[in-house]
Amino acid sequence: MNRIALLDDGYLELVETWGSDERIVEAARMSTGKGFQGWGPNDCPDCGPLPSEEKIHLHGTPLGKEGCSTCRGKGYVAGDEKLLRFLSENHHDTPFEMGGMVIEVKAPIMVFREWHRHRTQSYNEMSARYTPLPDENYRPTIERLMVNSKSNKQAGTGKGADELTEGTAADWLKELDEAYAHVERVYQHGLQIGVPKELARLPVPVARYSRMRASANLRNWLGFLTLRMAPNAQWEIRQYANALHKVLSETFPRTLGLFDERRS
Amino acid sequence: MNRIALLDDGYLELVETWGSDERIVEAARMSTGKGFQGWGPNDCPDCGPLPSEEKIHLHGTPLGKEGCSTCRGKGYVAGDEKLLRFLSENHHDTPFEMGGMVIEVKAPIMVFREWHRHRTQSYNEMSARYTPLPDENYRPTIERLMVNSKSNKQAGTGKGADELTEGTAADWLKELDEAYAHVERVYQHGLQIGVPKELARLPVPVARYSRMRASANLRNWLGFLTLRMAPNAQWEIRQYANALHKVLSETFPRTLGLFDERRS
Amino acid sequence: MNRIALLDDGYLELVETWGSDERIVEAARMSTGKGFQGWGPNDCPDCGPLPSEEKIHLHGTPLGKEGCSTCRGKGYVAGDEKLLRFLSENHHDTPFEMGGMVIEVKAPIMVFREWHRHRTQSYNEMSARYTPLPDENYRPTIERLMVNSKSNKQAGTGKGADELTEGTAADWLKELDEAYAHVERVYQHGLQIGVPKELARLPVPVARYSRMRASANLRNWLGFLTLRMAPNAQWEIRQYANALHKVLSETFPRTLGLFDERRS
Amino acid sequence: MNRIALLDDGYLELVETWGSDERIVEAARMSTGKGFQGWGPNDCPDCGPLPSEEKIHLHGTPLGKEGCSTCRGKGYVAGDEKLLRFLSENHHDTPFEMGGMVIEVKAPIMVFREWHRHRTQSYNEMSARYTPLPDENYRPTIERLMVNSKSNKQAGTGKGADELTEGTAADWLKELDEAYAHVERVYQHGLQIGVPKELARLPVPVARYSRMRASANLRNWLGFLTLRMAPNAQWEIRQYANALHKVLSETFPRTLGLFDERRS
Repeated sequence: MNRIALLDDGYLELVETWGSDERIVEAARMSTGKGFQGWGPNDCPDCGPLPSEEKIHLHGTPLGKEGCSTCRGKGYVAGDEKLLRFLSENHHDTPFEMGGMVIEVKAPIMVFREWHRHRTQSYNEMSARYTPLPDENYRPTIERLMVNSKSNKQAGTGKGADELTEGTAADWLKELDEAYAHVERVYQHGLQIGVPKELARLPVPVARYSRMRASANLRNWLGFLTLRMAPNAQWEIRQYANALHKVLSETFPRTLGLFDERRS
Repeated sequence: MNRIALLDDGYLELVETWGSDERIVEAARMSTGKGFQGWGPNDCPDCGPLPSEEKIHLHGTPLGKEGCSTCRGKGYVAGDEKLLRFLSENHHDTPFEMGGMVIEVKAPIMVFREWHRHRTQSYNEMSARYTPLPDENYRPTIERLMVNSKSNKQAGTGKGADELTEGTAADWLKELDEAYAHVERVYQHGLQIGVPKELARLPVPVARYSRMRASANLRNWLGFLTLRMAPNAQWEIRQYANALHKVLSETFPRTLGLFDERRS
Repeated sequence: MNRIALLDDGYLELVETWGSDERIVEAARMSTGKGFQGWGPNDCPDCGPLPSEEKIHLHGTPLGKEGCSTCRGKGYVAGDEKLLRFLSENHHDTPFEMGGMVIEVKAPIMVFREWHRHRTQSYNEMSARYTPLPDENYRPTIERLMVNSKSNKQAGTGKGADELTEGTAADWLKELDEAYAHVERVYQHGLQIGVPKELARLPVPVARYSRMRASANLRNWLGFLTLRMAPNAQWEIRQYANALHKVLSETFPRTLGLFDERRS
Repeated sequence: MNRIALLDDGYLELVETWGSDERIVEAARMSTGKGFQGWGPNDCPDCGPLPSEEKIHLHGTPLGKEGCSTCRGKGYVAGDEKLLRFLSENHHDTPFEMGGMVIEVKAPIMVFREWHRHRTQSYNEMSARYTPLPDENYRPTIERLMVNSKSNKQAGTGKGADELTEGTAADWLKELDEAYAHVERVYQHGLQIGVPKELARLPVPVARYSRMRASANLRNWLGFLTLRMAPNAQWEIRQYANALHKVLSETFPRTLGLFDERRS
C-alpha cells in the first residue's frame, strides 16, 4: 500500500513515477552524445563490500578521489555517480526534469493554500462548487500546539500573547471543536434550504480537508522539498514534504541522497 | 483613483501597466524586421468621420476590404489594426506577452483559491502566519444568494434541496453572521492565550478577506478573463474579472476590443 | 524498436510515457471525489460488436445519445468516454497534465530552433561547446523542394523568384552539397589548429543535425501537435509532429482520438 | 539612446521597464499588510554624507548594525534596504517578479540558441521563413579566438589540437570569410531560382545575426544573469549578459547592487 497517513485525517499516496537516476544521467549525456555508462561497483576491489551507507550516496566522487573508506585501496573506479554528483552540486538542473511523480494528497485547505503557490506543478482538486466537502477538519494535538511555545517562546505567537499551557491548549481545542460543529450546521442548513453549494461553503474553515492529485517533474519536486522541509516552513506542510521525500527516495535513491547531502 | 470597489469589502486596484497595442504590433513585426507602421485613420477620405464604435474595433480588416461602412468609399487605407486582428484571430499569442499589468486585489480566500490556479501569474499575498487576518468576511446579498435559484432552479444547489426564498435566505445570512462572529472569538482567544498565529487561524472561514499583488503579461491576463468572465465561472470571481477587463481596456483598447469580438 | 526514421538522417524515439486515458479521468474526478468508473462496452447489447472504428473514438457521447450506429438500439450505456469527451471539448485541460512522454529526437538545428520555442517542455541537447557535431546535414529531396512551387506557386518563395524546376532544384542540391563540404573543412581545420570548439562551429549550417531528449506532459504535447501538425507549419517539423502523434496514440488512444476529431 | 553595441554587429537595446526597487518592497510587504516605508538616509546624523558607494548598496543592514562607516555613529536608522537585503539573501524571490524589462537584441543564432533555453522569457524573433536573413555573420576578433589558448591551453579546444597562434588564427578567419561568402551565394541563388525561403536558408551558418524582442520579470532576468555572466558561460553571450546587467542596474540599482554582492 502506497498511502502514508498524515496529520489526523490526511494522507499522501503515490500514484505513479517516471524516470530514474539512470535516465537523468542519460539525459545529461545528450550534451556529449554518450549514454549511461553504469554505476560504480558496490565492492572495493581490494577489500570487498563497501559499508552499505556508502554504496549509494558516497562512492561517487569521494571514493573516486580517495579510494575505499575501509582500506583506502585505489583500484576502485567510480561510475556515473560522479556525473550525477556533478550535476547536483553545480545546479545543472535540467536533466532532473526527465523524471517525475504523480501523487494524491488529502490535506487541510490551509496546507493546499501554501502548496498551490508552487506554480510548476499540475493540480486537480476536489471542488466545493461541485460536491459538498465532507465534515473533516484538521485538529492539531496539544503537543503540536505547544511546539512553538516550548522551543521558541515568541516565535509565531501574537505580540502580548500569554504563554500557552497544556491546560489552555486543551481548552482551546474544545472551543475549536465547537466552532467547527457550529459552522458545519450552518453549511448543512444552507445546502438544505437551497443556498447554492458555491455559497453555502462560505463559513467552511481553512482547516477543512480537501483532496487533490499533483504532478511535477523531479527538479520541481526537489524545489518543493527545499522550501517545505525547511525549519521555517509550517509544521503541517513539513509532514507532507517529509512523506514526499520518502516516496521519491524509493524511485530516485541516488538523487535524493545527493539532495540530503546538500541540505545538511 | 484607480481602485474599483468589489463585493461588500473587496477591491481591485491598478498598480502599473507596461506595453501598449503599438508595442504588440512592433513585437510581431520582429518576424519580418519591420516596426509599427501606424494605425488607420479615424476618418473616411470620402465621407468624413467613421462611426465611433468602428474607430477602434472595426476599421481594420473589414474596412480594408469593404471600405467605409457609411459610404463604402474605397479610398480608405487600413493600418496596423489589420495585423493586430490577424494575430488575435489566428492565436499568434506571443506578441501579447510584450505588455502586462500589476494589480492589487482584496478578495475572499475562496476567490483567491480559484485565482491561484492560474500558474502563469506572480503573487504576493498577506500571510496569516505573519499577521492576524482582519475580521472581514464576505457576506453575499440576498439577491446574490437567489441568483441560481431564480434563473436556474437546479444549478449549483445540492440534490433534494428546498427552493430558496428571500425569507430563508435572509435567515441564513443571520446564521452566517453568527458563525463568523463565533469563529472570530475562537481565533482571537487563541491568539491571546498563546496559540501560534499559524494555528490560531484554523477556524478562519474561506469567506475571510485577504489581499495580494498579482502580475501577469497581457496574454495570460486574457487567458484569465476567458475563464473567469465565462458564464460558468463563480459570480464572485467574475466581478473581479470584469473589473480587470475594464482596467486592461484603458491601456490596451484595441486588443481588448478584439478580445470582446471573439467572445461574442 | 521504438525509433521512427525521419527526413534523411533524423529520428524520433520513445523513451518513456506515464499516465493513461484512465488516469486522466481519475484526475478529473478529483473535483467530485469519485474515481474512474470504467469505459463503455465494445458491444451493443442489442446487436453485438460495434464497428471497430467506433470502439474507441465514437461510442462515448454519440452512442450515449443515439444508440448503436448499426441497430440504433438504446440499451447501450456509455462509460467514462463521456467525461473524457466533455473535458476535451470544453477545454478542461488540467487533467491532461497527469500523463506525459519523454522522447529522443535527432533533427536539423533549424527544426530545434522552432521546437525550443515551446517553453513548457524540458530539453537536454547535444552541445557543440562540449563535442564537435558530426558531419550530418539535412539535404531535402527534389520532391520536397518542389512542394511549394507546385501546389502554391507563390507561397514561401521570395518576391520576383523564378519558378523552380526539377532541373534547377537538382542543380541547387549540388551547390548545397558543396557548401556543406566547404563549411565542414573550415570547421575541422579550425578544430585542428586550436580554435576553441565553441568558435570553430561558427560556420556550421542550421541544416546540421543535433540530438536531444524532450519531455512534456500530455496537455503540452497536444499544444505542440496543434501548432506543428498544422498546414502552415514547416514541412520538416510536421514530420516530427506526425511521428509524435503516432507514438502518443499508442499510450493515449482515446485522448488522441478526441484530438483528431477536434482537428478535423 | 538606449542601444549598446555588442560583438561586431550586434546590440542590446532597452525597450521598456516596469516596477522599481520600491515596488519590490511594497509587494513583499503584502504579507504583513504594510507598504513601502522609505529608504534610509544618505547622511549619517553624526558626521554627514555617507561615502557614495555605501549610499545604495551598503547602508541597509550593515549600517543598521554597525552605524556609519566613517564615525561609527549609532544615530543612523536604516530603512527598507534591510528588507530588500533580507529578501535577496534568503531567496524570497517572488517579490522580484513584480518588476521587469523588455529589450531588443541582435545576436548570432548560436547566441539565441543558448538564450532560448531560458523558458520563462517571452520572445518574438525574426523568421527566415518570412524574410531572408540579411548577410551579417559574426566574425570574432583574433584576440577573442586566442582567449582560451592563452589563459587556459586546454579548455575548449578539441583533443590533440595544435596550439593556436595569431598567425593561424588570422588565416582561419580568412577561411571563415570565404565560407560565409560561399554559403551566402548558395542562399541567394536558391532564393532567386525559386527555392522556398524556409529551405533556401539551409546553409545559413549559426554565426548569422538574427533579431528579437525578449521580455521577462526581474527574478527571471537575475536567473539569466547568474548563468550567463558566469565564467563558464560562452564569452559571446556573456557580453549580452553584461549589457543587460548595466541596463537593469539603472532601473533597479539596489536590487542589482545586492545581486553583485552575492556574486562576489
